[in-house]
Amino acid sequence: MTDKNIQLVSTISDDNKLTLSLQDIGMPQPGADEVVVRIEAAPLNPSDFGVMFSAADMSTAVQSGTDQNPIITADVPAKVMPALKTRVNKNTPVGNEGAGTVVAAGSSPAAEALMGKMVAVIGGGTYRQYHCVNVRNCLELKEGTTAKEAASSFVNPLTALAMVETMRAESHKAIIHAAAASSLGQMLNRICMADGIDLINIVRKEEQEKLLRDMGAKYVVNSSSDAFIGDLTAAIAETGATISFDPIGGGQLTSDILNCMEAAITRDVEEYSVYGSNTFKQAYIYGALDRGPITLNRNFGFAWGVNGFLLFNVLGKLGTETVASMRKRVAEEITTIFASSYTHEVTLQEALQLQSIAAYGKQATGEKYLITPQR
Amino acid sequence: MTDKNIQLVSTISDDNKLTLSLQDIGMPQPGADEVVVRIEAAPLNPSDFGVMFSAADMSTAVQSGTDQNPIITADVPAKVMPALKTRVNKNTPVGNEGAGTVVAAGSSPAAEALMGKMVAVIGGGTYRQYHCVNVRNCLELKEGTTAKEAASSFVNPLTALAMVETMRAESHKAIIHAAAASSLGQMLNRICMADGIDLINIVRKEEQEKLLRDMGAKYVVNSSSDAFIGDLTAAIAETGATISFDPIGGGQLTSDILNCMEAAITRDVEEYSVYGSNTFKQAYIYGALDRGPITLNRNFGFAWGVNGFLLFNVLGKLGTETVASMRKRVAEEITTIFASSYTHEVTLQEALQLQSIAAYGKQATGEKYLITPQR
Repeated sequence: MTDKNIQLVSTISDDNKLTLSLQDIGMPQPGADEVVVRIEAAPLNPSDFGVMFSAADMSTAVQSGTDQNPIITADVPAKVMPALKTRVNKNTPVGNEGAGTVVAAGSSPAAEALMGKMVAVIGGGTYRQYHCVNVRNCLELKEGTTAKEAASSFVNPLTALAMVETMRAESHKAIIHAAAASSLGQMLNRICMADGIDLINIVRKEEQEKLLRDMGAKYVVNSSSDAFIGDLTAAIAETGATISFDPIGGGQLTSDILNCMEAAITRDVEEYSVYGSNTFKQAYIYGALDRGPITLNRNFGFAWGVNGFLLFNVLGKLGTETVASMRKRVAEEITTIFASSYTHEVTLQEALQLQSIAAYGKQATGEKYLITPQR
Repeated sequence: MTDKNIQLVSTISDDNKLTLSLQDIGMPQPGADEVVVRIEAAPLNPSDFGVMFSAADMSTAVQSGTDQNPIITADVPAKVMPALKTRVNKNTPVGNEGAGTVVAAGSSPAAEALMGKMVAVIGGGTYRQYHCVNVRNCLELKEGTTAKEAASSFVNPLTALAMVETMRAESHKAIIHAAAASSLGQMLNRICMADGIDLINIVRKEEQEKLLRDMGAKYVVNSSSDAFIGDLTAAIAETGATISFDPIGGGQLTSDILNCMEAAITRDVEEYSVYGSNTFKQAYIYGALDRGPITLNRNFGFAWGVNGFLLFNVLGKLGTETVASMRKRVAEEITTIFASSYTHEVTLQEALQLQSIAAYGKQATGEKYLITPQR
């Protein structure tokens, strides 16, 4: 073990520039309840891009430095700088999750028990070589699990499971998911198939429709189709879905979903109510793939909610017991239900090449990057 | 007591016409748990207009019939007819609340106890002369209360109290109210002053600002002012308000409120979070004064909810004990905190004059109509 420990940091300076660079932060010493994990694999998730690129205009990105020490700079529009004031001139480590072997442990029994084990970790900037984390933020995998298999154990698996658990906690009986061909969406589809939950998948393209149907998805509707509203309403009438999860946000999709729910619910109702149905309709927005305005065209009565959905907050709401069983399930089924696949593997240095950024920044369905900081 | 019992009904026919007319429905016989109330006063609330006018284009309204039996007809746009299919060709009685003397009672002790008493009633079409209602839907007033004083005992008082109780149940510490110079808004202001709750009143006009300040309101912000966003943010920072109630819906006000909440919350925060603050921000929409799209410009992180707020559903959520104490408070303070004032009194016949409809249909601040079916 050397003393070198490279991490990827994102910095916004007060002259409206974003800089992405690598820094040697040295080898950490674990506290009593901490372990040092040699990060061997860490995924590039859409949720990482918010920290990494922030509000910079990446079309202005230029690369400098050396192959070993690449530096990316890009302009940040002046008008968004006030909202970023608490970030300015601070090095922000990037990377929400990753996996690797525990190479040093603190003195507590919980920390010592992880020595030499393969763990997944959450939080604190995983795009680095060695990460010192509290044991609370580690998930021990079954023996034989590889770092690549374990790399995406938290964000997508727990978010998908949190959707299902939220559906249960709030007494809905089927789920609608938008942008459903994503890694997360495929995982949610596998969970719902395993658990016998009806899932209505909303996609935008025919190839995404096919991908999900080939995986066994029963309900797939295409928002680009002229028949979308009718198809979605019919699927809701059949399944009774009254909860939805959408990573897009901007646009009219949330509105369409709520209106289709209301149309399906009131389809066979005999008695008129000026206030709409009493059946509660819930739309959760868990991302910002479209940062434009969310437009709600209200024909869905008064029994409805539109809420932000953020994993960390949701786990707090679901409670420790449910979360513990969710984590256990992920560790047990990481190579089946919760498997992720990657189309590209890059080193920390390669992740800071303009052409890599252009590729993974697209967030295209079926393209997923993995950072391997030890190569 | 005659056998005559006139009620106001709203009917949409399958030839796309709305008809408002008076019908003699005869004197009702109370069941065991019912009483017959001689309705002496019933308010015209904004919430009644949805049933009364529905989606008709009232600019096309014409009057026919006689002075004793006026008939109003208006066109209903063809495109909204499908949404109204469960109303078509049915006489829908109008009027959500009212008050008067119990003139007949069923055999149950609860019903008999109300004989001769002044009660307020909720539901079922109160724009009539004699109304047969379950004792559950009656509120007995203190001796000496007049029907005019008791007429608005349910909709505005319980809605305003439900806002305060919802704030308490959901652990917020101050309230934002939009369209705050309304009868309901003035009532909410009196409740909050009595209970020591900070209330931020949003109005659109200077005279509304003055009206509320003259009533003792501390926080009044004007959404027509250039300083609105700054004023609202400052008031939120001072009060810690994280819950709002808005009867408008359409437009950007809900979005502005949530963004101002977030700005106030993060104003002094040192640490940057790409997901925004963890403080939960709740916006309730309890009306549809603007039926246009609700536009959310999301700069308020992920800890937020926008929900419909409908009195009946909210009372169910608050629970019977809370609701019982709310009703008790209304009966005790109906001439003070929960007092309503009326600028015009009209008979059932006068309510169906084109010029009355034009006047009360405007829903102007400070203009409120009372129907007195016994005159």
